Amino acid sequence: MFLITRITLQDTHCKNKQVYDQENFQGKRLEFTSACQNIMECGVNNIRSVKVECGAWAGYEHSSFCGQQFVLERGEYPHWESWSGSNAYHIERMMSFRPICSANHKESKMVLFEKENFMGRQWEINDDYPSLQAMGWGNNEIGSMQIQSGSWVCYQFPGYRGYQYIMECDRHGGEYKHYREWGSHAQSFQVQSLRRIQQ
Amino acid sequence: MFLITRITLQDTHCKNKQVYDQENFQGKRLEFTSACQNIMECGVNNIRSVKVECGAWAGYEHSSFCGQQFVLERGEYPHWESWSGSNAYHIERMMSFRPICSANHKESKMVLFEKENFMGRQWEINDDYPSLQAMGWGNNEIGSMQIQSGSWVCYQFPGYRGYQYIMECDRHGGEYKHYREWGSHAQSFQVQSLRRIQQ
Repeated sequence: MFLITRITLQDTHCKNKQVYDQENFQGKRLEFTSACQNIMECGVNNIRSVKVECGAWAGYEHSSFCGQQFVLERGEYPHWESWSGSNAYHIERMMSFRPICSANHKESKMVLFEKENFMGRQWEINDDYPSLQAMGWGNNEIGSMQIQSGSWVCYQFPGYRGYQYIMECDRHGGEYKHYREWGSHAQSFQVQSLRRIQQ
Repeated sequence: MFLITRITLQDTHCKNKQVYDQENFQGKRLEFTSACQNIMECGVNNIRSVKVECGAWAGYEHSSFCGQQFVLERGEYPHWESWSGSNAYHIERMMSFRPICSANHKESKMVLFEKENFMGRQWEINDDYPSLQAMGWGNNEIGSMQIQSGSWVCYQFPGYRGYQYIMECDRHGGEYKHYREWGSHAQSFQVQSLRRIQQ
């Protein structure tokens, strides 16, 4: 068994994640307390199960933090489907990941805009919304977003389903002007639910 | 095109749901304002897309409200994967559904118990928890649950992923003593996230 152990427990910003190259926490195990740009450089071809012990993490389909995004909060993910959610295409890969430093469940704040480039109707929110339409948002799209505090995850479909788009106050200056800035997998403005990310 | 229209808009408890027998809101369309025990009795073999215009609904894999459960809040679900979430088995069926009458986002309350039959450590909650472990719950299981107000949906994995278990104050007297009472698809006590259902 191939094992790297780099546990650093910190009181304020503890981050710790274990990954395995087989499902159900079997096979080679690696432990991380910071970002990994390419899992293959750590001696495994893919990640097939994950335990998050501290902090919130962003996982990515490709190396260098590209492709589909997966928010990973504390808990156990025994196989690919347990973190992927329901997506339009199933490529069972997680090749890079990093901690989400600005996750702050209690003090998160963002502004939604109806149109791209911060135009049109706007709405300031600081709570989770499993259905934006049920809470008064007019349609199934968001044009642009300004993250003022914390980190958020937006989803294509109601009830936190479909593609995940991770939005952070300390990336892009917190400004997401167009769906092209949400991630390389974003193909439309469709967002029907969103929530704060917690450590 | 086969069309049933039974829209009844009510101020306080508006419930309206459109289902289609093809993906992307194509094919035969049926509109519902109340429960449907078997979609085949309405002239379609399966539901392949859904628009929820009012209220919260529970969808089921089999007729008579059996099998996998899917919570459906207001919004658009263009294909099976948009409402199913990530599950251990993929049977692309929704054969029955009903409104969730007790959904009450603001005043929901429930008690979690560490062991079955309301034994062991307990925790009263009235908020959404994308990671129960991050918020202080000791393990990845819940033994039993008492729903005091509103309706809740529990999930196998963190971040509202995996099997969905719908729990309501006005069913089973709000008491769910063992995972066998969570639904016929429940095979273990594993619950890692849960949230309130909103109308």
